[in-house]
Amino acid sequence: MPTGTLISEAIQGANLDVTQPCGGQGRCGRCAVILEGTGARRRSTIRLTAEDMAAGYALACQTVIEGDVTITIPEQERIERRLTTDKTARKIELPFPYDPATMQSVQAFQVDLPPPSLQDNMDDLSRLEKALAAKGFTSITIPLPTLRRLGTILRDSEWSPWVVLESQAPLLGPARLIDLSPEPIQPIGLALDIGTTTVTALLVDLTTGQVLNSAAEYNGQIARGEDVISRIIYAEKKDLSELGTLVRQTIDTLLERLKRRTGISPEGIHKVTVAGNTTMIHLFLGLPPSSIRLTPYIPTVNHPQTHLASELNLGVHPQASVLCLSGVASYVGADITAGVLASGLANTDELTLFIDVGTNGETVLGTEEWMVTCACSAGPAFEGAGVVDGMRATVGAIEEVWVHSETYEPTIRVIGNAKPRGICGSGLISLLAELFVTGVVDRAGQVKLDLDTPRVRQGEHGPEYIVVWGDETETGRDIVLTKVDVDNLMRAKAAIYAGFTVLAESVGVELKDAKQVLVGGAFGKYINVENAIKIGLLPDLPWDRFHFLGNTAVLGSYMALLSFRSRQQIQEIAQMMTYVELSADNTFYDAFTAALFLPHTEITRFPSVAEIWAQHEGD
Amino acid sequence: MPTGTLISEAIQGANLDVTQPCGGQGRCGRCAVILEGTGARRRSTIRLTAEDMAAGYALACQTVIEGDVTITIPEQERIERRLTTDKTARKIELPFPYDPATMQSVQAFQVDLPPPSLQDNMDDLSRLEKALAAKGFTSITIPLPTLRRLGTILRDSEWSPWVVLESQAPLLGPARLIDLSPEPIQPIGLALDIGTTTVTALLVDLTTGQVLNSAAEYNGQIARGEDVISRIIYAEKKDLSELGTLVRQTIDTLLERLKRRTGISPEGIHKVTVAGNTTMIHLFLGLPPSSIRLTPYIPTVNHPQTHLASELNLGVHPQASVLCLSGVASYVGADITAGVLASGLANTDELTLFIDVGTNGETVLGTEEWMVTCACSAGPAFEGAGVVDGMRATVGAIEEVWVHSETYEPTIRVIGNAKPRGICGSGLISLLAELFVTGVVDRAGQVKLDLDTPRVRQGEHGPEYIVVWGDETETGRDIVLTKVDVDNLMRAKAAIYAGFTVLAESVGVELKDAKQVLVGGAFGKYINVENAIKIGLLPDLPWDRFHFLGNTAVLGSYMALLSFRSRQQIQEIAQMMTYVELSADNTFYDAFTAALFLPHTEITRFPSVAEIWAQHEGD
Repeated sequence: MPTGTLISEAIQGANLDVTQPCGGQGRCGRCAVILEGTGARRRSTIRLTAEDMAAGYALACQTVIEGDVTITIPEQERIERRLTTDKTARKIELPFPYDPATMQSVQAFQVDLPPPSLQDNMDDLSRLEKALAAKGFTSITIPLPTLRRLGTILRDSEWSPWVVLESQAPLLGPARLIDLSPEPIQPIGLALDIGTTTVTALLVDLTTGQVLNSAAEYNGQIARGEDVISRIIYAEKKDLSELGTLVRQTIDTLLERLKRRTGISPEGIHKVTVAGNTTMIHLFLGLPPSSIRLTPYIPTVNHPQTHLASELNLGVHPQASVLCLSGVASYVGADITAGVLASGLANTDELTLFIDVGTNGETVLGTEEWMVTCACSAGPAFEGAGVVDGMRATVGAIEEVWVHSETYEPTIRVIGNAKPRGICGSGLISLLAELFVTGVVDRAGQVKLDLDTPRVRQGEHGPEYIVVWGDETETGRDIVLTKVDVDNLMRAKAAIYAGFTVLAESVGVELKDAKQVLVGGAFGKYINVENAIKIGLLPDLPWDRFHFLGNTAVLGSYMALLSFRSRQQIQEIAQMMTYVELSADNTFYDAFTAALFLPHTEITRFPSVAEIWAQHEGD
Repeated sequence: MPTGTLISEAIQGANLDVTQPCGGQGRCGRCAVILEGTGARRRSTIRLTAEDMAAGYALACQTVIEGDVTITIPEQERIERRLTTDKTARKIELPFPYDPATMQSVQAFQVDLPPPSLQDNMDDLSRLEKALAAKGFTSITIPLPTLRRLGTILRDSEWSPWVVLESQAPLLGPARLIDLSPEPIQPIGLALDIGTTTVTALLVDLTTGQVLNSAAEYNGQIARGEDVISRIIYAEKKDLSELGTLVRQTIDTLLERLKRRTGISPEGIHKVTVAGNTTMIHLFLGLPPSSIRLTPYIPTVNHPQTHLASELNLGVHPQASVLCLSGVASYVGADITAGVLASGLANTDELTLFIDVGTNGETVLGTEEWMVTCACSAGPAFEGAGVVDGMRATVGAIEEVWVHSETYEPTIRVIGNAKPRGICGSGLISLLAELFVTGVVDRAGQVKLDLDTPRVRQGEHGPEYIVVWGDETETGRDIVLTKVDVDNLMRAKAAIYAGFTVLAESVGVELKDAKQVLVGGAFGKYINVENAIKIGLLPDLPWDRFHFLGNTAVLGSYMALLSFRSRQQIQEIAQMMTYVELSADNTFYDAFTAALFLPHTEITRFPSVAEIWAQHEGD
């Protein structure tokens, strides 16, 4: 094979196949293969992280063969995983060096007790307490199930048991005996993020702080409602406990998957931290959520106390502590406080905007010294709901669209190299931005039917643009974006942008003074800044101020799992944030109405878009 | 009716009946009636307490009519109760004035919260916490089941709920929310004593400190073994959890009875304290008790932590705290520490001997400044086991015997005015003492067969004394005391007395210097000092030094239920006591052997008995 051959060509030459949804342009990252040996050179490493490359990943379409190299084509399933759930895990990195001695509350160690005698007849528990007191643990709480095993285990271990303790301060002070055993025990933790759509779990070695493995799965509650409001109504009218059972089943699925991959059984998990929005936390704890959706929107609890896994029927060690992190209000929950911590907003003196783009559109503006927050009820349009051909970001979803400025013909990229079935959030943003800049849709969101293309037509639901003709789709039906869809998307983006402006006005700063915009949420990772600015979803700032952080909620949960200080900080963040209730007066409504244009009524807020638009109008 | 008529005669004159097992000699106390009015004079008040008299009780055979008086004859059942279980209750009096503000940890009160609004959107729990903090409760723990009801109850109560809190210091500081309700709640406690034979329960109003009612019942575990060792073996070889279930069923029976009498349901009980020997506490907590009976006799726990009723499946409020009081060692348990507190030993500078006469023969010698204790494995002879015609103190048990010094014919008193079925502990002490002073049994415990009476004979199991001929018994069989029975009784009394001497020697004091002898345990109440000294069971001290305190364990449990300080004191007592392990060397064995005589090998230890015996020998 000649030197300089592309790996993708070599693979095809060998009659093998590698997925190339972008057609070999090095844009989608889906043709990743694994290299062993040094005889290959990467021309481009787009969409590969440093870890990916350290693990040998390279893009088949962007890597040339220059010598001996073994190429492994990952199974498609593996690629999918890598790009969705496992990618999240591989990116998880603590923003601080981990020192269990000063940070961790859960420890496992062996303790030597003097065996009893007629002259030394101290009872078993006092004997253990005395030995632990000598190590600095002054007041041991022992749960009844553990106490019931104490006598046997002390004797089986010949008075040298392993213990797992959770202390209230690192390595010291009052502590709770979680487990004890004659065999060595490794302390393990679980960081959860319970999203309305996806539940993410990180299995963590509490000694090293490392993520041993991670997994993500759709929240089983989806079958009972796509968004938080429908879940609340289901809990109210039908069955609160069923929703608890469903999310526990999802967690069980994740735990089984993690066990398969690591050999660590769920019963070996000694501590759990949970991030999630306020409704998800209420359903997880079995708290009736009704008051969350009724004015004045009061949750039962924003700062949950620590509960035991056994009380929650959670399938980890029954004595594991389960800490649901602190939220701010009914619609700004622990996913946001954990996200703020993970994003670094709490440690910067620069004016920062933090956004979790999603149904609730939670936004935080501030610095380490002050924060204001709101939730702007964007609705689920960006999650594919309320849009005729909208869908979640799974196989068959159109995730990016390019529209030709003269022919109005689209080029699309589909997740999983499958026939398209619909359009996911990032695809919708991309499509709307392209339709806007090519003039298919005007500033008011009207679809121009007078263009010279069969792609626009008067459809059943009014004017629409055909993205894919039926003969190329999975379902055989055209995939379209209708005027109604455009209105829904505009309402969603207007709500989010209005949230930004209300927050900025509430503290008397200007959005353009934001030195960084941190975008959290799994969905945020896939947003194209340029497109998002074009439609007025994100403020018009230099692109280098935007940082897409992925699932900041699970990262915050992971930090809280490992560090006392991080848990404190999340509480502090929750208490520091001033919640701006958008329904309290007309400020939000006015800002929302102003944002119901592409990109905005006040075009001066979007100078970069104004330029493109001016060119276009000038055509 | 002429002035001076005995009430018993008046009753018979009216063709009514009153029980008079002692034949109207004013000895048995069973003809008690209730007087209203002042027209009667008590000649004797034997077996009546001050409370009895305040309640109007008088002995029908010892009270003369001198004017207008209304006489009520209690139902026989009521008399039985008064003499057994309920008597215990009526005697229960705190040795200190009760002030819940400084003593009690459980309180119920109504709290007013400001209703939430869009401007005041604090979550429900924080709102409650803030209101409670204003009352001095700085850190509220809320159990998950209570949290799940919080939102509904706050709204149902229009933001003025009743709460039940258990605090760690009176009226202040960290506290646990046990319950909350829109309706007023009365805080109620339960003081338990779980005896090997009998479980006693006091239902207590925690606001006033008053015992609302009490009940006692045989421990359901009896069916699985009469003494602690057989229970331990049953737990080991057969079913530990069954023993827990059995005692919980007994407690449920008591709770149902208390509910019937007071209308207070078990779910309304917010705090429970438990006294009991170490084995009973282990079985109640579900702890394997094996190591208690195996050298070096180490229990799992002497100082149990507080557990929740729900963890123990105890049928009171699931969030009620259950505190098993502190014990000293495997054979000196919380019944003794609670008993020592209740007896006043911990508050006197006089040398005091405290005895719980029973299977284990726990004894404490000391003052408020020091205490030594031991358990001398007396065996269950005084509880009627190991004696051919022994039985527990129930209906049909001979509880007192007088033997004629010339004819050797006995006079007996039977519990419940029934045909005799056997002899209970107090009856055995009385019988052995009488047989000894009348010369039927000699100092070595030999039954003299050469006496001129058909009451002594060579029986199937060796020499024996016939207490009741078969034609007068319930069973139709003779009730006898055999040489083997005498040996068993002598071993039991020798073990107890040897315990006293070992304790005295261990601290270098003499038994005769004891300024008071406090006898605890329900059985203790019925011991006749004179007889007990005659057989060498109790030391030969002036009778006025003896105080029979009844169930000191349940009294201590009651004190602990009401008072922080009492709980602390029980812990202090448990920690202060030096446990003397009798199996550690030969000291106990030597003392035991010396005591295997009537009353003792060293007759000089029993000068009052020596005198009687000298008279007798001189006959």
